[in-house]
Amino acid sequence: MADPEVVMFNFWASPFGTRVRIALAEKGIKYEYKEEDLKNKSPLVLQMNPVHQKVPVLTHNGKPVCESLVIVEYIDEVWKDKSPLLPSEPYQRAQSRFWADYVDKKFHEVARKVGTSKGEEQETAKKELFDCLKLLEAELGDKPHFGGDNIGFVDVALIPFYDWVYACEKCAHFNIETECPKFTAWAKRCMQNESVANSLPDQHKVYDLVMLTRKKYGLD
Amino acid sequence: MADPEVVMFNFWASPFGTRVRIALAEKGIKYEYKEEDLKNKSPLVLQMNPVHQKVPVLTHNGKPVCESLVIVEYIDEVWKDKSPLLPSEPYQRAQSRFWADYVDKKFHEVARKVGTSKGEEQETAKKELFDCLKLLEAELGDKPHFGGDNIGFVDVALIPFYDWVYACEKCAHFNIETECPKFTAWAKRCMQNESVANSLPDQHKVYDLVMLTRKKYGLD
Repeated sequence: MADPEVVMFNFWASPFGTRVRIALAEKGIKYEYKEEDLKNKSPLVLQMNPVHQKVPVLTHNGKPVCESLVIVEYIDEVWKDKSPLLPSEPYQRAQSRFWADYVDKKFHEVARKVGTSKGEEQETAKKELFDCLKLLEAELGDKPHFGGDNIGFVDVALIPFYDWVYACEKCAHFNIETECPKFTAWAKRCMQNESVANSLPDQHKVYDLVMLTRKKYGLD
Repeated sequence: MADPEVVMFNFWASPFGTRVRIALAEKGIKYEYKEEDLKNKSPLVLQMNPVHQKVPVLTHNGKPVCESLVIVEYIDEVWKDKSPLLPSEPYQRAQSRFWADYVDKKFHEVARKVGTSKGEEQETAKKELFDCLKLLEAELGDKPHFGGDNIGFVDVALIPFYDWVYACEKCAHFNIETECPKFTAWAKRCMQNESVANSLPDQHKVYDLVMLTRKKYGLD
């Protein structure tokens, strides 16, 4: 049964929401899940996140936490005894925060561009996406996960976009395994983690959503 | 004498760099300061921050840390015994991270827009700036600083933009004290802190830089 003290407001396809789902799953926290209609958000979400008016929002004992990386770090600090996501050493922590921030600032923007453009613009965005992934592959190095042997903060920040990369592959005609084999191998390893596998939405449903959006904006 | 193990690469007018200067000053850390020419960055900076190729960069025992909020949090974690910047309680920490992130994502963008636009576009940006500051004023509430009695993470994130608000005032013709008296009172309180006062660049020099940029882009 859900622990009533933890509630998550989300939209099923949000990669940011998926981060929070993975973190909660890794910590073994039971919670109440509330699906939001993005076109008609509940008054409660608007009240909980008046600044950005976005999901995901996590409430803990009625108090809201917003912005996915802030939420994941909050979860990691409150439930610190199980499956630590950030390392304990300050330099490693800073590196983890840097790369999670890179996923937000750069990788997410570029992936979005691939999914919402066509023609030459999309070709440019595609190259940028590969460049981003190459940088992430270099940071991963020979480790099984960014967090080392187990998934950590950067893995939680990045893996929710795997579904979106699949949608990008389809609509921008490339093969991610050929282009970024190390990234693909990492993603497949992450998918063997139960918390990850159970938290990511169906990639075909995400693809359908992307195609619907592309049609709406006359991109296909 | 500077402690050779800490080196900061910066551009004097960068509000992001000023955050790092304040944090180092609050912790009483001696460091070597290296001014960078933004048009001709040193090979060392490009090597230390290959991803964003930007300043500020902090190196500690030769190892680089990049992105100002990541650097400030790193400083807070390494030199944790003096002048803590983040609170110790997880919910308060999450709130601090949320608002510092808000300064980056929203306030900074809007202030930049005021400084780099004119006419109707600038009028709109001006209103957005006041809205941002009103939100920040509400978050401040009756506390002397965002961090409580002493400056904290959000104060360090926000106060470096005070100089830029001064430049905005001049080029967009408004009086910040009239529009946002609570913000102005907070900023003046922060300026009484020696670490802040010694770290912020001369506001007239920042203004000159903004005006030079505006002229370059045909905005004045």
